[in-house]
Amino acid sequence: MSENDVADYARTVARWEPGTRDRLQQAALELFAEHGYDGVTVKEISDRAGLTERTFFRYFADKREVLFLGNEQFQETFRSAAANSTAGEPLTVVLAGLRGAEALFPDDRRAWARARHEVVSTNLALQERELLKMSSLTTTLAQVLIDRGVDRRSADLAAELGVTLFRATFTAWIAPGERRSFTELLDETLGGMRALLSGPRAVARPC
Amino acid sequence: MSENDVADYARTVARWEPGTRDRLQQAALELFAEHGYDGVTVKEISDRAGLTERTFFRYFADKREVLFLGNEQFQETFRSAAANSTAGEPLTVVLAGLRGAEALFPDDRRAWARARHEVVSTNLALQERELLKMSSLTTTLAQVLIDRGVDRRSADLAAELGVTLFRATFTAWIAPGERRSFTELLDETLGGMRALLSGPRAVARPC
Repeated sequence: MSENDVADYARTVARWEPGTRDRLQQAALELFAEHGYDGVTVKEISDRAGLTERTFFRYFADKREVLFLGNEQFQETFRSAAANSTAGEPLTVVLAGLRGAEALFPDDRRAWARARHEVVSTNLALQERELLKMSSLTTTLAQVLIDRGVDRRSADLAAELGVTLFRATFTAWIAPGERRSFTELLDETLGGMRALLSGPRAVARPC
Repeated sequence: MSENDVADYARTVARWEPGTRDRLQQAALELFAEHGYDGVTVKEISDRAGLTERTFFRYFADKREVLFLGNEQFQETFRSAAANSTAGEPLTVVLAGLRGAEALFPDDRRAWARARHEVVSTNLALQERELLKMSSLTTTLAQVLIDRGVDRRSADLAAELGVTLFRATFTAWIAPGERRSFTELLDETLGGMRALLSGPRAVARPC
């Protein structure tokens, strides 16, 4: 995480008039950027935030939770948007789930997401946890389709494609300098995926 | 893992006239099926195989390695097949990598793969490791494309699609009763993926 990222995130937090949770998250991200994730203790995070360890543990089960809080809400946002879709095609249902999750990625969360991503991508255990979160999302989306009577294999494949699309969109969303919305990038990524998969084109021939 | 799977795998191993490594792998899979992965020690695996712990550690760095041996060879098989492709389209290069990996999935490895999958899918730490292996495969395939001058974002997306395709194909290959080859299932899965992504069809109109 660059110092700019941290400063950018700090300004965002300041705009929120942060509560205790936000202060702890900000303190943790700053410290992880300075000393690496493994080099920071819960006590140091609490100290930096001007709070006690006891308070820390009222908000987070452990140090890792600072970066992975809210997985249930994360899954539920995608699930309910997909489940409420009136679409018939499996991938369209999955896409409704992804579009419904746009609310999780407003512009004022982008700096936090960038800073968090930097920390996660430099630690193997955090990467594994992140991959598991994506794997849960696949299961969540596949279950919505199975509940609608889609066969298991098509459901799994559509859900896997959806998560692939989500990850690529998210990566684009946090790219340095990127300002477009999550939804704009989702549409662009979907177009790119379709182009990649379109296969050999039929030769145009005049009627 | 069902007892049938274990028996099936044991017969396969018997056909190979197994060496020390195979005996250790077989003993480990049997014990994992009986007591769960966490409930088995290296000493117990060695005992079951009629070997010493010292011998075990000559073949595997730790208990987990019994299930994850050969990741370098695994990655290299995909990498070299993709790198040697003469194709121009990014996804076609990735597909060449997947087709080249068919040798890793001969029919006489299917029983082992099924039994291994059962163990991995019931243990969180093993699942995380498996996901990381797939994440490495994405990086490996994307790098082949980047080395050919494909832009980063298209390379990542094509590699992610390739790994999604690989995982879905592998899941189909180890499904109960499945007898078709890895390549046949790869083509079928690719067809399914294309159909999912084809989007609203153009209305056919007569010339």
